[in-house]
Amino acid sequence: MKVNYSKSIPYNDDALDRLFKALSDRTRRAQLARLVKGPASISELAEPFDMSLPAASKHLKVLEKAKLVSCKKSGRVHYCQLQPEVLQNVEHWLTDYREFWNEKLDKLAQFVARESDDE
Amino acid sequence: MKVNYSKSIPYNDDALDRLFKALSDRTRRAQLARLVKGPASISELAEPFDMSLPAASKHLKVLEKAKLVSCKKSGRVHYCQLQPEVLQNVEHWLTDYREFWNEKLDKLAQFVARESDDE
Repeated sequence: MKVNYSKSIPYNDDALDRLFKALSDRTRRAQLARLVKGPASISELAEPFDMSLPAASKHLKVLEKAKLVSCKKSGRVHYCQLQPEVLQNVEHWLTDYREFWNEKLDKLAQFVARESDDE
Repeated sequence: MKVNYSKSIPYNDDALDRLFKALSDRTRRAQLARLVKGPASISELAEPFDMSLPAASKHLKVLEKAKLVSCKKSGRVHYCQLQPEVLQNVEHWLTDYREFWNEKLDKLAQFVARESDDE
């Protein structure tokens, strides 16, 4: 797995608070999943979730504030695009814990191996 | 990097909502960082953050609800322990986006390389 953690992406408590808050809602995560396929208008981001445009817009504003999404007006339509780079902050934050859970799982695997040897 | 994604850990929208919500507060993240060093009592988790016991307890309840922490009473003291395995859900959720940002960064690197060739 390749991890390019760029120092140009702000990594601080404010950024992480906003990021995790933005990700704590399943509708916003679904909007991000839609945007992986390519940019979309606000209507396209409202329709599959049976949402009003203002409701979809409100969720997108939280995603924009967390810098996960950028929206631009083209003619009369607002188009939104995924900015996945900021998720490197989550990746970076996970590092310490990843080591910890792998260690725990290794110990569990060793325990299971010992138990089956004893049988 | 070794990723052991265990299917025994529930992965669904409810679990992810709770998990990201629990992580969206810097005090709770600091409590987790303290617990990486080993189990701690609620007082030990309140003191460095200059918090009251009820305030520390409230944050720990959010972490317990997200299954990031388990607390047990030993005598008159509650001890809390980190349960990092559930963070594999975050790791798992990141997968699609990780590919996407690496692709974007590769394209950027290619563009920079082309620009410097032209100079």
